[in-house]
Amino acid sequence: MASEFDLIARHFTPAASGPEAGVALGVGDDCALLTPRAGQRLAVSVDTSVADVHFPADAPAEAIGHRALAVSLSDLAAMGAEARWCLMALALRDADDAWLADFARGFHALCAATDTALVGGDVTGGTLSIGVTVMGEVPYDQALTRGGARPGEVLAVTGALGGGAGGLAAWQRGERDPDHPLLARYLRPQPRLAAGLALRDLASAAIDVSDGLLADLGHVLDASGVGARVEVEALPLAEGLVAALGREGAREAALRGGDDYELLVSLPEDAVAEAGRRLARQGLALTPIGRVTAEPGLTGAGEIGLAGWQHFRAGPPGDRGGGA
Amino acid sequence: MASEFDLIARHFTPAASGPEAGVALGVGDDCALLTPRAGQRLAVSVDTSVADVHFPADAPAEAIGHRALAVSLSDLAAMGAEARWCLMALALRDADDAWLADFARGFHALCAATDTALVGGDVTGGTLSIGVTVMGEVPYDQALTRGGARPGEVLAVTGALGGGAGGLAAWQRGERDPDHPLLARYLRPQPRLAAGLALRDLASAAIDVSDGLLADLGHVLDASGVGARVEVEALPLAEGLVAALGREGAREAALRGGDDYELLVSLPEDAVAEAGRRLARQGLALTPIGRVTAEPGLTGAGEIGLAGWQHFRAGPPGDRGGGA
Repeated sequence: MASEFDLIARHFTPAASGPEAGVALGVGDDCALLTPRAGQRLAVSVDTSVADVHFPADAPAEAIGHRALAVSLSDLAAMGAEARWCLMALALRDADDAWLADFARGFHALCAATDTALVGGDVTGGTLSIGVTVMGEVPYDQALTRGGARPGEVLAVTGALGGGAGGLAAWQRGERDPDHPLLARYLRPQPRLAAGLALRDLASAAIDVSDGLLADLGHVLDASGVGARVEVEALPLAEGLVAALGREGAREAALRGGDDYELLVSLPEDAVAEAGRRLARQGLALTPIGRVTAEPGLTGAGEIGLAGWQHFRAGPPGDRGGGA
Repeated sequence: MASEFDLIARHFTPAASGPEAGVALGVGDDCALLTPRAGQRLAVSVDTSVADVHFPADAPAEAIGHRALAVSLSDLAAMGAEARWCLMALALRDADDAWLADFARGFHALCAATDTALVGGDVTGGTLSIGVTVMGEVPYDQALTRGGARPGEVLAVTGALGGGAGGLAAWQRGERDPDHPLLARYLRPQPRLAAGLALRDLASAAIDVSDGLLADLGHVLDASGVGARVEVEALPLAEGLVAALGREGAREAALRGGDDYELLVSLPEDAVAEAGRRLARQGLALTPIGRVTAEPGLTGAGEIGLAGWQHFRAGPPGDRGGGA
């Protein structure tokens, strides 16, 4: 687009850069030049958020910017990685300056809050979508993966579940108050980066709950070659969820609802108390929800099956993308 | 998409991985884990290729896969960086298995040819587009940027120019022979990674010619605070270009045509012969096309102006994305 460089310069010049951010050269050349730290692995992931597939196209622009970055950062959190840098591939049809300013504000605010430097990107024409590549660092052999859960360990989740699905339902009912607790959970999820760092030396496995607790638990069980028993009664439910969806609906949202961006971890029994203390210092709950079993398969919530949640969908058929 | 994980597993499992590729953990977890080498900066860039904006939607799937990676790798080449890893964000409407197999073949073949490991990605529904994030490495203080051109230096380009525009014109005329020299240049550009490495200690500035020679030269001049005189007679023209477009049309294509993915470099007079010898060993020409001047602005080709090329466009209005 004729205004591409202007547009990038106007709204997406990175706030954080310079040696302290590990940015030797930021936006404006063929590549950004970054300075990885010694003794660290680089953790990288990309997630694309598409309008009317992953979020309502008419959601507040600031929330769209926040959310697109948050879902990618959540993958770093799930590895116990520290966020460092990101790149944004933005597609949009009409570059409305006010919309872009709000969108950039939401994106930059989360960059600032998580010490993530925006170091590059590109802009193309098309249906609104935001692909965000995130890069983080984690010391050698300390990354949390999906494959480390061992029989007898405790399964636990950070924060509360069901807020993503409950917030989407609220949006679809016409709720627009940005302070509505469920809507806030859906539109402005908080990537659990600090929790991932705090649990790095305690947890055996981790994943972020993006596709729904049961679906994401299934990934951990598959990767670890184990099974689990989930105590449905124990699930921490998002504030206002029971009032909005009823007890059964709330449990369904917690089990199958996507877009929660909490961490699901497996950790040894004797690490649970310390893990809880560390997260409490962050103002975040850690709730045991079940146990890892040697026998494959799922019990407790087993009758509900392992299927994931149908994400937001409107207009043309579209599909949920996974991280990597 | 229900088949997303299957689809990724079937077609996009990385061929190269393991310690030798710097991949501690590849596709299949929340993030890939990579091992940067000591003493190197990380060079990163993202480019999105959109169907009927950056390439014809009915181009061969294998060429679309090749091309989407090539245009991103070209940014690494322009920094003098060595390619290491990539991530792919793929959007497509209908996942046709045969098409995907061809697409993946083109992508993987270029990965293999350039020692680039595909370490992750995501798939969403939508208009066909491919966002490719590339990561490479370049030793501290050896990266080529746009900002180093000095008055008196020689401007030179690798390979030949105008093939991108000439190939697009051939495609639009109905040419479909994949061995047609201009079509091959347009559909399967070769990122000049080896040339970038070879010129790293000789050149003062570099950029890849993606938006057209004059437009990209303009970026170098702006970043370096200099001007240039370009000898239009000296421009190396792609094979078959004069026959296809006539002498004037060929020059226009070489000056304003985009999608060539050659390198434009500025280098001291006394480095030109050695630079030429090094590229000759790669079977690649290095052609002096002008001089850097202290006075800003462009002469020689100056009357033609600095405007870039109108990229392929059909159907909905769309726009050219730049790297970063």
